[in-house]
This record gives sequence, C-alpha cells and structure tokens, in this order.
Amino acid sequence: MGDILPIENIKLEGDCNAVDEIDIVNPWTVTSKSDTGVDYDKLIERFGSFRIDDTLLLRLEKVAGKPVHPLIKRGIFFSHRDLHALLSMKEAGKTFYLYTGRGPSSDSMHVGHLIPFIVTKWLQETFDVPLVIQMTDDEKTLWKDLTVEQSMKMARENAKDIIAMGFDVGKTFIFANLDYMGRCPAFYQNIIRIQKCVTFNQVKGIFGFVDSDVIGKIGFPAAQAAPAFSTTFPFIFGKDKLPVLIPCAIDQDPYFRMTRDVAPRLGFPKPVLLHSSFFPALQGAKTKMSASDTNSAVFLTDTPKQIKNKINKHAFSGGRPTLEEHREFGGNTDIDVSYQLLRFFMYDDEELERIRISYSKGELLSGELKKIAIETLQSIVADHQRKRQDVTDAILEQFMTPRKLNYNFNGVDSKKY
Amino acid sequence: MGDILPIENIKLEGDCNAVDEIDIVNPWTVTSKSDTGVDYDKLIERFGSFRIDDTLLLRLEKVAGKPVHPLIKRGIFFSHRDLHALLSMKEAGKTFYLYTGRGPSSDSMHVGHLIPFIVTKWLQETFDVPLVIQMTDDEKTLWKDLTVEQSMKMARENAKDIIAMGFDVGKTFIFANLDYMGRCPAFYQNIIRIQKCVTFNQVKGIFGFVDSDVIGKIGFPAAQAAPAFSTTFPFIFGKDKLPVLIPCAIDQDPYFRMTRDVAPRLGFPKPVLLHSSFFPALQGAKTKMSASDTNSAVFLTDTPKQIKNKINKHAFSGGRPTLEEHREFGGNTDIDVSYQLLRFFMYDDEELERIRISYSKGELLSGELKKIAIETLQSIVADHQRKRQDVTDAILEQFMTPRKLNYNFNGVDSKKY
Repeated sequence: MGDILPIENIKLEGDCNAVDEIDIVNPWTVTSKSDTGVDYDKLIERFGSFRIDDTLLLRLEKVAGKPVHPLIKRGIFFSHRDLHALLSMKEAGKTFYLYTGRGPSSDSMHVGHLIPFIVTKWLQETFDVPLVIQMTDDEKTLWKDLTVEQSMKMARENAKDIIAMGFDVGKTFIFANLDYMGRCPAFYQNIIRIQKCVTFNQVKGIFGFVDSDVIGKIGFPAAQAAPAFSTTFPFIFGKDKLPVLIPCAIDQDPYFRMTRDVAPRLGFPKPVLLHSSFFPALQGAKTKMSASDTNSAVFLTDTPKQIKNKINKHAFSGGRPTLEEHREFGGNTDIDVSYQLLRFFMYDDEELERIRISYSKGELLSGELKKIAIETLQSIVADHQRKRQDVTDAILEQFMTPRKLNYNFNGVDSKKY
Repeated sequence: MGDILPIENIKLEGDCNAVDEIDIVNPWTVTSKSDTGVDYDKLIERFGSFRIDDTLLLRLEKVAGKPVHPLIKRGIFFSHRDLHALLSMKEAGKTFYLYTGRGPSSDSMHVGHLIPFIVTKWLQETFDVPLVIQMTDDEKTLWKDLTVEQSMKMARENAKDIIAMGFDVGKTFIFANLDYMGRCPAFYQNIIRIQKCVTFNQVKGIFGFVDSDVIGKIGFPAAQAAPAFSTTFPFIFGKDKLPVLIPCAIDQDPYFRMTRDVAPRLGFPKPVLLHSSFFPALQGAKTKMSASDTNSAVFLTDTPKQIKNKINKHAFSGGRPTLEEHREFGGNTDIDVSYQLLRFFMYDDEELERIRISYSKGELLSGELKKIAIETLQSIVADHQRKRQDVTDAILEQFMTPRKLNYNFNGVDSKKY
C-alpha cells in the first residue's frame, strides 16, 4: 500500500482522454465517491476491456457444459479480455492453465479475498486445468512496512487459507516469490526477459510510479507478469508456451495490460483476463476492504460473535431512517452492504431474489436482512475454519513443492495443442 | 554497453562540483581525450575514494607478510575505500571474504580481463580467504543485444577462463546470476532488501539512468550489490555478516558506492574497495579495450601469429617518427601501449625498469619494444590456453555448485570474529 496515485497517472488503453474524476482504481488504491461504488462501465471504457454480456455467458455455459458460477452470472465477474478466443481454443480441444494470486498483507484474510479463488476453483474443476497461485510476498515487503521474514510468514499463512478452500493438490502449484525465485532459474530468466521489454516511462504510465519510488517497485511488475508465461514453470509445462486464463479483481489489470503488451514480443500468447468487481467494505462500497482495518471486513479468523457485532455495528445499511419510511419506500439493495454480502456469498438465486424484492418493498427490515447476512457469513467462516485446521505444514509443503501437475485434458495430450 | 552517459549524471560523492569535461568513467563507458588516459587523481577526487599511498603499501606488505603484488606496487591498483580498516581488522585476527566479478560479453576474454583476477588470486592466497565470483549474465542480457541463453553460455565460457587462472576450488565459488538466482532464495531476498532502500532518483544520480531505460537496468544494481552481503551465500557463511573486500576496475565503483550507502541500513559492514586503473586498448589509453573490437585487444584465444600481428600493426607507439629523432629524444613510455602492456604483465621489476630507461633514452627502438611485448603476451596466452584445456565441464560444475567453502583463517574460528 502507500502512495495514492492520481487517476491521471494510469495509462489509459481504451479512450485515453476519458479521465474519471470520481473513481481511483489501481493495484494499491481503489476508492470511489459514489455510494454504489466504482462505476464499472466507465472503468471498462477506460481500461479498454470488455463487458461480459449475455452472449458470452451463454457461450461459456455451453463450453462448460453446466450453469456458470453465480459470481459470474450475477455480474460480479463482469469484464474480460479475449475470453471468446479462449473458449474457441477450448472447443478446438486445446488446453490452457489458470493463474491467480494474492498479496499476503496480513496473517488473516478477509472473506472478500475468497472471491477470486472461488471462481478460480470453479474454473479449474469445470475445465480440468492446472492452476498456479502466486503469493507476492516480495511486493508486500516493497510496498509495506514489512520485513522479508514477515512477508514470507504471511505468504505461508495465507496459502493455508487458500488450500482450505479445497484446491486439488494434483493440479495446483502455490508459490511465494521470495522462496520460489530461489528454487527455479526459469522464473528469474523470464523476469529479465520481461524487464528488458518494459521501460520506466511505460511503468510510470501504467502504474503511476514516480522518481522517488524505490527501484524494487519499479521492477516488481515483471514478477507478477512472469507466471503468465508457462515456461516460468518448466516442471509443469516443459517448454510449452500455453495460453493462460487469469481470474482477478480488476485493480490488478494494469499488471496484465503490461503483460499482454510484452507477450507477443517474447513469443507467448496474450493472457486472457476475467475481472471481478470489488468486494465492499462493511462501511460501504465507496472503499475497498482493507486488511489493516479490522472493522472494515469480516475476517476468516473471526468468531461468530465478532461477525455478528461487526455486521450489526458497521455494515452500511440501505434501509430508511425510520420504520415507517422503510415500510413505505423500501430499502436500497444497491448500497446495502448486508445485501451485497449475500450477492457474493448466497448462491441460491431464488432465495436471494426473494430477499431483494422483500427488502426493496420494505417488508424485510434492515435488522432482519443483517441477521440473514450474519448467519450466512458465520456459516461460511466456521466451515472455513474447520477446513483450515486440517491444512498442516506437510500439506502446505506439498502444494508449494515444484513438481509435475496433472494437466492432460479430456484424454487429449496437451503438448500437442 | 550502450548509452553513453554524460559525466554530469554521475553522482559525485567527494567534491560534487568537480565536473571533469575530459574523462567519462562509468560501468558502461570509459573514455578519455588524453593520450595518457584517464586522469586518476581527478577521478579519485570525483569519486571520493583514496589514493593507495606508500604508507598503505608498507602496511599492506606488513600484514601480508610478503612483498605486495607488482600490480599493486606499480600503482595499477591505485585507489581504495577503507583498506586501512580492513587491515586493522585482519591484524586483530578477524576474517573477511573476497568478491569480484565479470560481465560476460563475449565468448573469449581479452588479456586485460585477467588483471582484477590476478590480484584477487594474490589476495586470496595471501590472506587465505574465501572468494565469490559473480558472472553478470543478467546485466549483459539487459544492456546488450544478447538473449538469456547467449549470455548464460558466455558466462560459462568466461568462468572456464577464470578457473584456468588457478583458483582453489576449495575456497572459490563462481556463480552466474541467471542460474544462481534460481538456486538460492537468499540471493533474491537480499536483492529485495536492497531494492527497498534505493530510489530511482538515486540510481539516476549514480548511474545516469533515464526514463527511457528498461526497468531491468534500473533494478540491476541490486544484483551486483547483493554478493557484497555475506548472507547471499548461506551455504558458505551461514548467517554471519562478514566484511568483504572487492578488487575491481574503478568503473565499477558506482555499484559499490550504492552498496556502501545501503550496507549499514541492512546491518552489514560497508564493503572495502580496491580499484584498478584501466587496461589500455591497443590503439591507446584514450579508450578502454572492447571485447567487441577484435583489433583493440589481445584475446586469450589468439594464436602467437595473431598476437604478433595485432601488436605490430595496432599497438600505439610512443616512439619518434624517424629513427634519428628516436635516437635523439627517446620514446614516451607513458603513452606507448607496448610498454604499458609490460607494466601489466612483466613482473620482473628490474627488467621492466631497464626497458623503461633504455626506451626513454632512445636506445631501445619501437620495433624492439614491440617484440618484447609480443613475446611476453605470447607466453602468457599460450600458458593460459594450455591450462584452460584442462578445465572440463565437470570442474566448472564443481566451482559453480553452491557448497561449503574452507574459510577458517589461521586456526581462528571465523565465526567468532
């Protein structure tokens, strides 16, 4: 974290003159002055990505052979780059791999951090593809007041939370940069190849770096780019230059715009992107949740009582000031954080729609809606805690050991794609 | 190589206003407009280092317990930082290690590349200390039109030349960045620690980087700095933070000025420096030899005939235009490249002095001086070629394998210094 970057410093790929004065979206700062949060239509225009429309949803469902995950269907994953091309390739019997990551900035993750991993897991299970997960402990050392040792410890703790979500160890490789860099020469070699293609002028434009930034920050984007090139993992992919699909929150897009620019120059396919919107802070959608403010989020280590108190006390309500007004005019689900939490975590579409209508009509009261959100999150967090207890150091080592993964797809030899 | 940096861009540590308009000295460009080459007195003033004076020479001899190497005695190694402090520490029974390196920019090295290694070997044998040698193949990929693969191959070829000089495998670790980075997490961890301490403004000042430079260049100085911190080699030094002595040509000093600035902030002793002057190109001391111009230098792969032809044809002469004038006024050894070659490679002081006087008086003719230089270099190169033939891939692997070295000093446990 750290520097608040002026929006003018973000390199605009789509309409380069469309400067939005309300929303700030980059890997280190996401803020909006609107109660409904970031204006995603404007963001898509600015970043030059594409809205996931009904045609794409239908096509995804057809290729997946099953309904898409609610987080995609509900538009929480709302933007993409080249997803059509990936699906065409998939239909032609070729394979790809998945890459996502996490910046381990605290010992404990909050529930919002689960979102990209939930969809990543769905994609992995649906398409039966290998997955690499990067823990950017180097980034956290560079940007925050954390030592190398502290960041490395957090990376391992956070990796255990990710493993607890049920990833298949046979198809998933988790690595932390400060460790993996020293375990596979191909990683650094690809970083140097990338760093040879990108100038300071370019990262200034893309990330808003300034001359007073430390040189570690200036070089870091290459470390996040490298795993999008399959030769970074020779023990999995050999020398194959496989396509990659990267599910991530849209604030990470600058890294992958840079990666997409570099990819063809190094003979790699451009990474395909699937962007999620931001998970709201309890205080409202104007801000992204912050792991450093314990009251801004429900953490995976919270007790049922803490969850109850946090949501009751801090969850921004879209209800009316008085019971009478609420009954008459109804609540506003667009800004109500408890309702938004359910959009992210209640996957029964009919039940969610029933709640939305009832709250909008003023039948369901704020307190009642909060109660549903509390119970939903209590259940998810308790379930997570049970599973995480079983993630031993030995299991962590398994996931983090460079090794072959199982990535033959439907009997087609992936090396022949 | 590449950018010619204006001298104004070099950060001046000593007298910051002493801008020299004649000499350019930085890791990528060394040029002088004077026939006698770079003005080293001005350079010392500008870099803020110290002249190796007679007092220091005497003290070095006393601590070494033997005459200093001719390359030091003759002032070819002429400048230092903190050498007095290192000798005091040595007298107190403490130990240190040696670090030097090479940027592998061609398959074959020229004879000038031997100079820092000759003195490094003398220091290692004299003080019985471990030595680490860095091959900066990453730097060469970033600065030159070389792929990762080409640079890595050159690093191995050049390492064989270095090994042929007779280093003790029990006390010497040679590593190439593009390989070693992926074999020891401590290396990258120290690089991140260093890169967190140095801003773009600082490397702009020290190295003259500009906004259009690729981000790999901007981050690279940390890779050359890291081996000056002993924890970069945990298999040799454990967690000890040992002092280091770095013999190098003075154009590398900017890297170590940066390193000395960072060291105390990371709890390491400041590296001690021993600077050599530049080896002259055959065409004269105005330029540094270039591995890319085969006529500018005698290469370690040259045949006796090639050496003869190069020196006869290209070695800049300090002799007079006509025999009569030469006999009357004598030759100028300060600018005569054949004489300078002997200063670097003829270690019989009396013989060298006899040649100097005879040439200066006009008794010895240019052709005769060239003949002596030719025979001296033919013998050195032939000897090198014989020894290099014996450096097998297996021996190279031994030197380049991370492993324990023998570094107890005079029976004193180095860990207790």
